[in-house]
Amino acid sequence: MRSLQGPVEDLASTALENKIAEQPALNNGHANGHANGHTNGTTTTTTLQPLDASKLTIRRADPTAREVPDEDTACSGNETICTDHMITVTWDASSGWSAPELKPYGPLSLMPTASVLHYATECFEGLKAYRGYDGKLRLFRPDCNARRMLMSTLRISLPGFDPAELEKLIMALVAVDGTKWLPKSRPGSYLYLRPAVIGTQPQLGVQAPKEALLFITASFMPRMDTPPGGMKLHTNPEDMVRAWVGGFGYAKVGANYGPSLLATVEARERGFTQILWLYGPEGYCTEAGASNFFVVWRSKEGRLELVTAPLDDKLILDGVTRRSVVELARERLAGELEVVERRYTIDEVLEADREGRLVEAFAAGTAFFICPVSQIRHRDTDVHIPMGKGEIGQYTAKIKGWISDIMYGNEQHPWGVVVDEQ
Amino acid sequence: MRSLQGPVEDLASTALENKIAEQPALNNGHANGHANGHTNGTTTTTTLQPLDASKLTIRRADPTAREVPDEDTACSGNETICTDHMITVTWDASSGWSAPELKPYGPLSLMPTASVLHYATECFEGLKAYRGYDGKLRLFRPDCNARRMLMSTLRISLPGFDPAELEKLIMALVAVDGTKWLPKSRPGSYLYLRPAVIGTQPQLGVQAPKEALLFITASFMPRMDTPPGGMKLHTNPEDMVRAWVGGFGYAKVGANYGPSLLATVEARERGFTQILWLYGPEGYCTEAGASNFFVVWRSKEGRLELVTAPLDDKLILDGVTRRSVVELARERLAGELEVVERRYTIDEVLEADREGRLVEAFAAGTAFFICPVSQIRHRDTDVHIPMGKGEIGQYTAKIKGWISDIMYGNEQHPWGVVVDEQ
Repeated sequence: MRSLQGPVEDLASTALENKIAEQPALNNGHANGHANGHTNGTTTTTTLQPLDASKLTIRRADPTAREVPDEDTACSGNETICTDHMITVTWDASSGWSAPELKPYGPLSLMPTASVLHYATECFEGLKAYRGYDGKLRLFRPDCNARRMLMSTLRISLPGFDPAELEKLIMALVAVDGTKWLPKSRPGSYLYLRPAVIGTQPQLGVQAPKEALLFITASFMPRMDTPPGGMKLHTNPEDMVRAWVGGFGYAKVGANYGPSLLATVEARERGFTQILWLYGPEGYCTEAGASNFFVVWRSKEGRLELVTAPLDDKLILDGVTRRSVVELARERLAGELEVVERRYTIDEVLEADREGRLVEAFAAGTAFFICPVSQIRHRDTDVHIPMGKGEIGQYTAKIKGWISDIMYGNEQHPWGVVVDEQ
Repeated sequence: MRSLQGPVEDLASTALENKIAEQPALNNGHANGHANGHTNGTTTTTTLQPLDASKLTIRRADPTAREVPDEDTACSGNETICTDHMITVTWDASSGWSAPELKPYGPLSLMPTASVLHYATECFEGLKAYRGYDGKLRLFRPDCNARRMLMSTLRISLPGFDPAELEKLIMALVAVDGTKWLPKSRPGSYLYLRPAVIGTQPQLGVQAPKEALLFITASFMPRMDTPPGGMKLHTNPEDMVRAWVGGFGYAKVGANYGPSLLATVEARERGFTQILWLYGPEGYCTEAGASNFFVVWRSKEGRLELVTAPLDDKLILDGVTRRSVVELARERLAGELEVVERRYTIDEVLEADREGRLVEAFAAGTAFFICPVSQIRHRDTDVHIPMGKGEIGQYTAKIKGWISDIMYGNEQHPWGVVVDEQ
């Protein structure tokens, strides 16, 4: 019979924490990885090569072979335009990580039996490199992305690494391609950086891959933070939820995205930008598409609040932009507005609207940056949210401006990490 | 305010049913596909090429280049050994499906920005080709796999097709490679067939792919239906669930597999074969690993029952083996045993064990076929399940025998579809 008393033999409900604890580079700064094989009670430990950015080899593309397109046309086609180079690192369970390679951008070769193509053994990150108004090239809090990538990688049973090494590799790609592809003549522009890890072992059967590939690309990505009239959200259909308690909604794994497309496509055909994903019979607001979601309202007691879903349910992504919004608002809007991370329902949003307490709403993430939300449709009810002058509310605009100033070097801040260009 | 009355404007909770209804080949047998683009109220319809097996082109590999390995060694490495050929068909949103190609087995070339590598836009099927004791080559209910593949494909926002055409392509691959790779000298052996569809559009950004690839491989796969001592299951840790109502547990999409590996690896390190996935605070039994799960018990009233989870929650896969077990048991064990598809909890299993009512249990699926379960560990409780003589219970053995006889031609049955060898 089911017992709740100290189940010593229970399957660890902390598998991910255990995995993270096993990452030696995170615990003592030591650079060696270990493969722990537990088989029938015997534990064998082999020294594996850790991810090591200092081993990076560079094979340059012909710099005259490709021209940098206009920003306007760069995102007009059905194909992402990447820069001259990419970084790749292979891993296998018997030897660990190979020496990273920076090489000309091009196709990957995968066997049809590769794990990633069948079992979604894949995760990724998204961040940007910014050309500052002071001429410098910056990343925004890349350490946050690198740490989250480790968490996602382990959640999807791909190999761990020292996130500081991933950060160095991201910097290396930007250092090589940034000068040409993000020229000083285009201050205020950016490149989109996409690190990813995929399971490449060519073996069918549901198992943790024994071979993997880490790769990083840099590319153009359209600006999505200022859609005319603001972002329009439609709540999800009742029979489709994005993530659930005990799932993996907090990890940036492919499995969170593909299944969300069906509802998103349908919402777009109706003129909406994204799905506002509700959770549970209570209808808790979680994410707006693949962005975090914020509401500014007056509480019933009249307090001005900036409200967003909490992280501790592990339903939503721990967004770098989300985190930055929360931290800056707490620091710079103290006394004016209270930042509240808590579960809140769509009914609370509808009620605030009816009672005239809804002030602003916005989505926050790397792709949409800080994007004002002007409308939410839930079933047969429409909420129209004030947008303010210039199609952006005053608090949304303030926060967006602060973060943007850090990204583009108008404000010197530790979050803006300058890249030395080669 | 939220309203429950006839929400005409609500986002369809039937998006998948709508998509399936749009498949022209399914509705009127007509071979043309259509692309329906809804933009700002205007609907444009373009005729797209449907998936058409009659357009198959064949480019043969050198038949002497590779030898067929012994069955014993074929599955001993870390790489799946495929047959000489594979089938590939490309799709793009503007023209539809290309002419299918049967060509030498080899790697796929994908851009690093390909949708499948980031957003898990992927789904697959698994079925087997059997070399019968009568010398014939057979598939087992391939129409079921083809229809399920269509459902999975649409759920993950990949392009639809007429499942009958997919079935013909599967047959074509087996017809070409079956004679060499599944020789008449090896009756009772099989090849594993893996059709898959992946999103190949090389564009970052969360969107339904405008380019896709369907491919089919045939390979060796280890026998997993007779592990010494039977299959041992461990219930999932409390903070990890496989699927949830409103999710996609019923579809064979990659997103169901990668996230399950973390718990599975941990269970294997403890000597268990698979996770028994429970659902909800009630602990409903759903699947055993990636197989369906059956229990034979005596009800409290003394009736002998074969119990398995129902399909209508959309939590579990509509397994072809599951379906065959249910249908054959209803037909051939009527009067002896009642087949019950209903929600049942792990506590009911534990209670039946304590009261001596537990008779047998088995997992059913293409990979494990019909595999006796000898043990379930739930928290700190172990259930030991009778295995019977020959390490298999009598009902499990009967059902397994019937299905096996159909697969290998000992019984002529409509489910065993003979392939004409070339």
